[in-house]
Amino acid sequence: MKLLEKVIAEKGEIIGNDIVKVDMFLNHQIDIHLLQEIGKEFRRLFTEDINKIVTIEASGIGVACIAAQYFDVPVVFAKKGNHRNVGNDIYSGEVFSFTKGITTKIGISKRYLTKDDKILIIDDFLANGGAVKGLIGIAEQAGAAVQGIGIVIEKGFQPGGNELRKAGYHLESLAIINSIENGRITFG
Amino acid sequence: MKLLEKVIAEKGEIIGNDIVKVDMFLNHQIDIHLLQEIGKEFRRLFTEDINKIVTIEASGIGVACIAAQYFDVPVVFAKKGNHRNVGNDIYSGEVFSFTKGITTKIGISKRYLTKDDKILIIDDFLANGGAVKGLIGIAEQAGAAVQGIGIVIEKGFQPGGNELRKAGYHLESLAIINSIENGRITFG
Repeated sequence: MKLLEKVIAEKGEIIGNDIVKVDMFLNHQIDIHLLQEIGKEFRRLFTEDINKIVTIEASGIGVACIAAQYFDVPVVFAKKGNHRNVGNDIYSGEVFSFTKGITTKIGISKRYLTKDDKILIIDDFLANGGAVKGLIGIAEQAGAAVQGIGIVIEKGFQPGGNELRKAGYHLESLAIINSIENGRITFG
Repeated sequence: MKLLEKVIAEKGEIIGNDIVKVDMFLNHQIDIHLLQEIGKEFRRLFTEDINKIVTIEASGIGVACIAAQYFDVPVVFAKKGNHRNVGNDIYSGEVFSFTKGITTKIGISKRYLTKDDKILIIDDFLANGGAVKGLIGIAEQAGAAVQGIGIVIEKGFQPGGNELRKAGYHLESLAIINSIENGRITFG
C-alpha cells in the first residue's frame, strides 16, 4: 500500500537496524484518515466470508474497529493478563514478545468466539508472529475458521510472516519492511 | 441516549447491585454500529473547539477511534505500565482502579500532547473517575485544554461524575446508571 509506505518513510523514526517507531500515526497517536484507508484496503484484499474481526489489545483495537466498518462486522479483542472477572470461561493462550522479553497471557471469552465464526485476524505489527499465533491458537480452541490475517506493518526480515504463509494462511501485510540500513527503509 | 440505554438494559449482564457487564457490545466484543451512533452523539454534544481526542488503553481506544471520525481529529491514547521505549519523554500519572484494587501508571509522550492542544477526553466507563482524573493530570502537565469529557456509561451512584461536574468540566455521559436493584437498572 503505497500511501502507507510513504507515511512510514516520512514519519517513522528509525532506531538502529531493526526498529521503526510509528507511534506518531499508528500506535500511540492515531491518524484516523490513514486508518480508514487501511480499513478499505483490507476490505479489498479479503473477499472471504468473514463475520468477525479478532485482534489483541491495545494497539490492534483502533485498526480493527475502523476496518470493521467496511466489513460490517463486530470486533472481538483478546485481553491481556489474568482477568478474574472473565472467569474460567475463556479460551487462552500465551504470547512471547521478543521486543519486551516477556510472555503475556491472552484470552477471549468463550461467548464471543465459537465454531460458527469465520474470522479475520487484524494487528498493527507482525515480526516473530507471537501475537497472531496466540490468536490462531485461541481460534483453534473455539473451532473458529481463520479466513485471513491482515497486518499493517510486517517486518519481512523476521520470520513470523513467512511461517504463517507456509502454514497456508491468507496473510496480507500492507507494508513489508525488508531492511533498515543506515537510516533507510527498504520495502518488499 | 435512548438507544444505548436500551442496549444496556437488554444485553448488559447484572452482577450483584453494582456491576453491569457490557463486554458483549462495548469492551470485549464491540458493536461497531453502536459505536458509530455513540460517536455521532458525542459530536452533537461537544461543540467546543477540539483538535484531538485523548483516551486510555485498552477499551477506550475503540470508542475514541470511531468517534474521532466525526470530529475529524487524531486520537492519542495513554499507555499503561512502564514503557521503556517511550523513554523519559512522557507525561505520566497514576490511576487507581477500585474494581481491580490496583494502581496503574499511565503515560503520554510529550510529543503528542502540548499546550496548543484542545482535547476531548473519551472513555467507556466512569465510576470513581480514576482514569479521567489521571488523563486530566497529564493534560495539565502538558498545558493542554480539556474542552470536554465524553463517557459512554457513568455509574451515577459512584462519585467520579459529580466530582468532575463540580470541578467545572463539561462532562457528558451517554447513559447514567443510577441504581441496580433486584436485577433491574434505573437510568438517570
